[in-house]
Amino acid sequence: MAVAPEAAPIAAAAGPHVPELLDRIEARLGEIAASYPEPLSGWASGTIAAGGKRLRPLLVLVAAGPPAGWTAGADAALVRAGVAVELVHSATLVHDDVLDAAPMRRGEPTVWSSAGRRAAIATGDALFADAFRELVRNADVAQVQALSRAGSALAEGELLQRADAWDTGVAVERYLHRCELKTARLFEAACALGVHAGTGDAALAGELVRFGRRVGLAFQLLDDVLDVSGPVERTGKHRGTDLLDGTVTLPFLLARERDPAIAAIDLRAVTTPAHAEALCDAIAACGALDDARAHALGLVTSAKGELPAGLAEPQRAALDLVADGVVARYA
Amino acid sequence: MAVAPEAAPIAAAAGPHVPELLDRIEARLGEIAASYPEPLSGWASGTIAAGGKRLRPLLVLVAAGPPAGWTAGADAALVRAGVAVELVHSATLVHDDVLDAAPMRRGEPTVWSSAGRRAAIATGDALFADAFRELVRNADVAQVQALSRAGSALAEGELLQRADAWDTGVAVERYLHRCELKTARLFEAACALGVHAGTGDAALAGELVRFGRRVGLAFQLLDDVLDVSGPVERTGKHRGTDLLDGTVTLPFLLARERDPAIAAIDLRAVTTPAHAEALCDAIAACGALDDARAHALGLVTSAKGELPAGLAEPQRAALDLVADGVVARYA
Repeated sequence: MAVAPEAAPIAAAAGPHVPELLDRIEARLGEIAASYPEPLSGWASGTIAAGGKRLRPLLVLVAAGPPAGWTAGADAALVRAGVAVELVHSATLVHDDVLDAAPMRRGEPTVWSSAGRRAAIATGDALFADAFRELVRNADVAQVQALSRAGSALAEGELLQRADAWDTGVAVERYLHRCELKTARLFEAACALGVHAGTGDAALAGELVRFGRRVGLAFQLLDDVLDVSGPVERTGKHRGTDLLDGTVTLPFLLARERDPAIAAIDLRAVTTPAHAEALCDAIAACGALDDARAHALGLVTSAKGELPAGLAEPQRAALDLVADGVVARYA
Repeated sequence: MAVAPEAAPIAAAAGPHVPELLDRIEARLGEIAASYPEPLSGWASGTIAAGGKRLRPLLVLVAAGPPAGWTAGADAALVRAGVAVELVHSATLVHDDVLDAAPMRRGEPTVWSSAGRRAAIATGDALFADAFRELVRNADVAQVQALSRAGSALAEGELLQRADAWDTGVAVERYLHRCELKTARLFEAACALGVHAGTGDAALAGELVRFGRRVGLAFQLLDDVLDVSGPVERTGKHRGTDLLDGTVTLPFLLARERDPAIAAIDLRAVTTPAHAEALCDAIAACGALDDARAHALGLVTSAKGELPAGLAEPQRAALDLVADGVVARYA
């Protein structure tokens, strides 16, 4: 499989090793999915194939810096780290689709909708187990711990989202904490894994973890903007699915501050796609989407601005491009 | 928490270190569950507290042999291995309860029934992630790989069970393969982990893995017998829940060979608990339960008979007791 279009400029900035390693990650993901007995193999392959941008493995590779600084065998270790991060991400998606009763993801039917919750839970569990099997081959306790912590955080974030469902008065800080748990922690882990598997520079790992958190947070914020802004051709789902689901996100919270009519809405009364789309229009009309985008842009700017001063130029340029790419996809 | 009554004689045979380490495993399990934010913490604690016999951690400890042969720090490593195996087991139970829509487990309401599928899936995912975080601290790739392989096998076994649901003509070999995947592989892993974390004797690990597989298989067979034989006071659920669920097990398969009336039954027509109990009585009446027990007993006998000749006496005695205990609980 070719490198996703979004990844190509980043790969070009970081060096030719990036597309090469992304290809190896892709091949290994396919190999792991194919290694299960049928029908698990088909579900796992479908889940991984529908996976999209491979942003997290890309972050692993870019965090590792230029190959000149790598320890021996770092290329294989980075492939394993990229594979492991993507497997945890994929496992989470399959489980989320069960929880959200999601019929489609990225334009394809979900495992849950085509084969049922049993298939989806088992597929997720198998991918989850294999993530750790793959990563432990790097023989670095810190790497497995980083990924496992991110795995626990994903579960906590998912629960927090449900606990806060329909609560239109939830504090923005709490919303941001939820985004951190369910998205940013895995971006952090990707950065930590990349540094550990590449150069093993513990101090840099700590600094790039902060970068990963901010970029991950921005990613989730913009994902939530996209749910309101659409267009459908891009998201593969109707606008306002979060609202219908009771998931209160930043655009809605900001719109409540701006528009008393929106502040008065009880989301439980929004039950049809048409009603949800009308609410999306109202959220956009009061400028809340622009504000939410601005918040995300601010996070990206500070992520870039706080990159360590001593960072080698190709790596800084590549990290900047990853951060910009998160924003650009939603411009 | 005191050592479960079933474990006491085994602990006594293996040495005083076994109850001591089981207490440490128990304490650590409680610590991990308490480390989550609420409400996850409550669900995780409840799941672990309802956990019963700690047979798998016991197997870890007994497989490790007498402390005189252990490597430095083996006690802490064995505690981590016991904790990790039990966490994977617990994670599987919470997920299985979602899949089986099980209201009760061991007389307590399941997380699924009290808090819903979202709570149960997230609780299982968090426990699963923590199992690997705990085990990787032993800094032994083989241990994490053994546990991860068992985790994948559990998912495969669960799927196979569903794929074969309602298929009353399923081959006994296929039924046994399913039991191996969903139960015996984790028993195998417990044995392998115990040896690796205790003495690091790779040859012995290989031999005890065979022991673990047979004992685990016997355990599952007898669990399936118990579903038919009851009594309810012991199992905490009605007799025949497997039959109502379409899960075809050895007692039913053996009864089909003996009783043409049972062979003619379409399980989809068995829809009430009363009907399922009557079928349980018919299965017992034709001697199928005795035959299934005999099969399990044969596995246990061969597991004990094939223990390596050079095994130190307290370890052999303790392993024998574990194997006998699996049968005795169902006598």
